[in-house]
Amino acid sequence: MKNFVPTERTKVRRKPDRGSYDRELIYSILDEAFVCQVAFIDNGLPVVVPTNYVRVGDKLFLHGSTASRLMKTLASGAPFCLNVTLLDGIVCAPSATGHSVNYRSVVVMGKAEVVEGETAKLAAMRDFVEYVIRGRWATVLPPTEQELKGTLVLAVPLVEASAKVRAGFAVNDEKDYSAPGWTGVIPMKWVSQPPVPDPRGNPAISAPANIQHYSRPQ
Amino acid sequence: MKNFVPTERTKVRRKPDRGSYDRELIYSILDEAFVCQVAFIDNGLPVVVPTNYVRVGDKLFLHGSTASRLMKTLASGAPFCLNVTLLDGIVCAPSATGHSVNYRSVVVMGKAEVVEGETAKLAAMRDFVEYVIRGRWATVLPPTEQELKGTLVLAVPLVEASAKVRAGFAVNDEKDYSAPGWTGVIPMKWVSQPPVPDPRGNPAISAPANIQHYSRPQ
Repeated sequence: MKNFVPTERTKVRRKPDRGSYDRELIYSILDEAFVCQVAFIDNGLPVVVPTNYVRVGDKLFLHGSTASRLMKTLASGAPFCLNVTLLDGIVCAPSATGHSVNYRSVVVMGKAEVVEGETAKLAAMRDFVEYVIRGRWATVLPPTEQELKGTLVLAVPLVEASAKVRAGFAVNDEKDYSAPGWTGVIPMKWVSQPPVPDPRGNPAISAPANIQHYSRPQ
Repeated sequence: MKNFVPTERTKVRRKPDRGSYDRELIYSILDEAFVCQVAFIDNGLPVVVPTNYVRVGDKLFLHGSTASRLMKTLASGAPFCLNVTLLDGIVCAPSATGHSVNYRSVVVMGKAEVVEGETAKLAAMRDFVEYVIRGRWATVLPPTEQELKGTLVLAVPLVEASAKVRAGFAVNDEKDYSAPGWTGVIPMKWVSQPPVPDPRGNPAISAPANIQHYSRPQ
């Protein structure tokens, strides 16, 4: 299906003009990042934890230690809510309250499914590595049986999802522009810096182009 | 008090060696950002929403429309959990499972207090603007009475807080380094780009130095 169907839970209520259920937009935001914040309920209290994810088709994978509270809670079928936010800029308006931030944000709600079976888990682990750095899997040691056993992999079907986006300049009235402050947007961006070699690594092995100049999506 | 006292809820359980309750460290992480993710419970389900914050002394301020679900929920005294995560780099290890991210993360738990009174609200609004761009308040139109009425300001006392930090290279065994992949860290950073003037702004007003070359903390 081209677009997500807004549900009671994913419908954007505040500033609905910023809301979108467009699958392509939502996937483009997800694919620019690889860290999300996952909220769940623990002992009746809300908890939010940052974690890595990878999008593969119409699902996300999460993974972590079998001892992790986040993993154990989600594996139990508890409901969660996940957010990815890319900060794109600071909007300098002529009035204090006109100030804003430009951002692209995605919310995913649902329940996770435990990925069972060594082959499926191994495939997801490969996806994790390749999602963050394409081509890397072939150059590193695969997970051992022990490591696979100690890792919980969760699949999150992308069923309930929405995006919220703000872009552009201030939306103040024309008359406000007589204020003496500079107006405009300060663009912000996540960027990579030149890679720093591990002192224990082989100095004869040089970093491939996508590590030398890392950018997202891969 | 120099350090936060770990509680049942803020104690770092997974990889406790990465945990810290050092007030100076926690404040330095908070002050590098101005966007957090706030988790709360709505109709029995966990929800996470990105929002702006400002730290002033031993509290955070949040603000938003009186119509915002986040604001209304927190104003009711409902428990929340707030996370700020700075992604510092990608750790390229010789093994798949050795890969990691370097990050600095803060979790704050508690209940918010509604800031009442026009003077206190106005002061918090000033803090918001000055926290994001120092010196800006004097150059912009102050909030109108109507705008102040429509804005809910919440104070979050910094009582339950913890940090979690990972830095440095992979921690693999020496023997793993015979794998053929490059090892090291790809540093990542939020950076500002050259500011883009609002086409409706006065071209004779030039951006001050901290907007021309925006960096955090301000």
